[in-house]
Amino acid sequence: MKILIKNCTALLMNGNDEIIENISIGIEGDKIKYIGKIPNDFNADKTIDATNKLVMPGLINAHTHIPMSLFRNYADDIPFWEWLTERIWPLEKRLTGEHVYWGSMLSIAEMIMSGITSFSDMYFLTDGIPRAVEETGVRGVLSKGLVGKDEDDNREFEEIREFIKIWNEKADGRITTRIAPHAPYSCLPGYMRRAIELAKEYNLGIHVHLSESKKEIEDSYKAFGKSPIQHVNDIGLFELPTLAAHCVYVSDEDIKILAEKNVCVVNNPGSNLKLGNGFAPVDKMLKSGVNLALGTDGSASNNNLNMFEEINLAALINKGINTDPTSVPASTAIKMATINGAKGIGLESEIGSIEINKKADIILIDLNKPHLYPRYNLMSSLAYSVQASDVDTVIVDGKILMENRELKTIDIEKVIYNSEKMAKDLIER
Amino acid sequence: MKILIKNCTALLMNGNDEIIENISIGIEGDKIKYIGKIPNDFNADKTIDATNKLVMPGLINAHTHIPMSLFRNYADDIPFWEWLTERIWPLEKRLTGEHVYWGSMLSIAEMIMSGITSFSDMYFLTDGIPRAVEETGVRGVLSKGLVGKDEDDNREFEEIREFIKIWNEKADGRITTRIAPHAPYSCLPGYMRRAIELAKEYNLGIHVHLSESKKEIEDSYKAFGKSPIQHVNDIGLFELPTLAAHCVYVSDEDIKILAEKNVCVVNNPGSNLKLGNGFAPVDKMLKSGVNLALGTDGSASNNNLNMFEEINLAALINKGINTDPTSVPASTAIKMATINGAKGIGLESEIGSIEINKKADIILIDLNKPHLYPRYNLMSSLAYSVQASDVDTVIVDGKILMENRELKTIDIEKVIYNSEKMAKDLIER
Ligand SMILES: [Zn+2]
Ligand SMILES: [Zn+2]
Repeated sequence: MKILIKNCTALLMNGNDEIIENISIGIEGDKIKYIGKIPNDFNADKTIDATNKLVMPGLINAHTHIPMSLFRNYADDIPFWEWLTERIWPLEKRLTGEHVYWGSMLSIAEMIMSGITSFSDMYFLTDGIPRAVEETGVRGVLSKGLVGKDEDDNREFEEIREFIKIWNEKADGRITTRIAPHAPYSCLPGYMRRAIELAKEYNLGIHVHLSESKKEIEDSYKAFGKSPIQHVNDIGLFELPTLAAHCVYVSDEDIKILAEKNVCVVNNPGSNLKLGNGFAPVDKMLKSGVNLALGTDGSASNNNLNMFEEINLAALINKGINTDPTSVPASTAIKMATINGAKGIGLESEIGSIEINKKADIILIDLNKPHLYPRYNLMSSLAYSVQASDVDTVIVDGKILMENRELKTIDIEKVIYNSEKMAKDLIER
Repeated sequence: MKILIKNCTALLMNGNDEIIENISIGIEGDKIKYIGKIPNDFNADKTIDATNKLVMPGLINAHTHIPMSLFRNYADDIPFWEWLTERIWPLEKRLTGEHVYWGSMLSIAEMIMSGITSFSDMYFLTDGIPRAVEETGVRGVLSKGLVGKDEDDNREFEEIREFIKIWNEKADGRITTRIAPHAPYSCLPGYMRRAIELAKEYNLGIHVHLSESKKEIEDSYKAFGKSPIQHVNDIGLFELPTLAAHCVYVSDEDIKILAEKNVCVVNNPGSNLKLGNGFAPVDKMLKSGVNLALGTDGSASNNNLNMFEEINLAALINKGINTDPTSVPASTAIKMATINGAKGIGLESEIGSIEINKKADIILIDLNKPHLYPRYNLMSSLAYSVQASDVDTVIVDGKILMENRELKTIDIEKVIYNSEKMAKDLIER
């Protein structure tokens, strides 16, 4: 399949922030083949006219738990511990593969409709998540959250080996996997070491929660005499490419470690606010050379999967906490949501920018909206004015997943019907 | 004109937070006539089926500067003083009535499309703003921002008398006015006293900026030996019903004054973050009995007029700054954007809730979106998941201004064309 996108105003994110006018983009198979002028013999099967639209790389949601959309708006405005132990955990215990599949489908529909082309997930790995990724055409880095209070427990490791065998590099390569020790407070050191060994064996990266709450830091000092980041660094976690969600409470020493070990920190501003955890020092980490990506976290703590909202939050909040209107400018927030995310999930040679020979993961934003006029600076528009619903067209791996806001691979009415049914089933059990 | 809205799931905001299922609402002329069962002899000219929609009071944007949409995305990510003096003021000097009119039309289109039915504005009063309000059918509390560095300057006062004569209570009563000494730092005490006298003469309320930045507090202590709030209180400003935008930097003593004098504080979280001013202590003010409304401020410092975004920010940010997930729950943020705003602009007997004999200012939210499933708690959905683009239908003063997202009183292509032209004209002059 060959797709021609013509009359593009494009933000390529290929190392600079410029917005280029009046170019064309040629897609062949899953890849971007031409940018700029297109050869005369490029016979497109499909031509998209991008007049009055902005063409940019698809957004990368670097930390989420997609089946948790089934818990959206179920437990809000209550203390964190009550939220987790009395509301979320009891529901999670009841989850079956069918719940996970429909929750995943609902989340993927929402993500495509808001311009997300790749996501990095941590959850219980039934086949529901990869099946949803395979069917819908989105790109996913999947990992099972390992919780290890018994260092000799093998069950989860066996499940993961099985999962890797079946799903890693599948769905035309759109599914990749990571090893995910859930957090230092939920994995004993010996158990985390075994997770590291497993990652080395399969040559996979790590996905972990780190330094999310004040309590986590206090508990870590009590248990190990050091911060969670220092603790997992000493265990050897950062010898592998690591995606670390949150990092809200980080000392200067922690930041130094994150930078030196090339850890990618995923900032989840919506979730950190909603659960009352606070604000990650994004500006400071960026200035110390840490790669910062952006994520939504799960819908139970957000309560949506809207990366344009996270971009907006990242740009706004850091100005507020630093009382500095130059903190985290628009272009930085957009970078966090695209190329930085690609680096974080180990796919920077494949996605995160529009470049020749990269995968065709591209979105088109409809600019013909009152809130996007006048047209002084489209980078500002993207960070401060765009709404998720302005995303018009979504292409992943050279395939059109949404056009004129119509989903092409998902029967949305069926997904809504079944996920509502699954949710009812969960709370009524 | 009689409108019947049937099959409503409704959030009435009539003193409680309940969402009521399966009622009807009957509108006659500009007023709500029936809620619940509709008499058989109510022959509606128009029937709206609200199945799978949420019916609620229109949102009230309690502090904005609507012509400033012409400066949207023109000056971002730069220090406040540079923003104001080198970017905004030079453009404002070039403004003509035509600019103001088209900027107002653009903002009103954006506001209707995001569910705002009333706004409280402060700007230069050419006829452009009230003309736009009159034509579009929205409700506006208009005020000219008075800047007085010369206590004997009469020009602005004369303009205001003229404006009140022509426009107050006009457009079927949808236009009301307030007297707006811009801020204590931009009005000499004697000038502010004259503004107070003018408000008393016409029996009008006050609209003012208060305690927005750290610098403002420091300067106030230098000039008057007290905080801006203590200063204007001593001058007698709060003897009149006062709408005070921002109140970011407020002491316990300030909060006590605001509560005692029934001042309505307008929280503008997006603007306060964007300009690097920080966070207003919303939770503390609420607990001290202050009436808190919500506003977008102007599009030059936000950069949109999206009250659902402000609702979301108010609910999220206060949880973050107080590290307390119970801070500013969903229902409180919605109250700030509806009935509290109505109180703030002195129209609580007319709007802000759906009650019999109140004005029919009503919006319908389309719930059939993936990000609004499952349906555990619609109040949470409104604060944490809804997007402005989910607003489907907007009724103001008993007239339909938008239906199925189609604007009924605005030629949107014409407004976009002209506001883009006006913006180009401004920067190229
Ligand atoms: Zn998480
Ligand atoms: Zn203002």
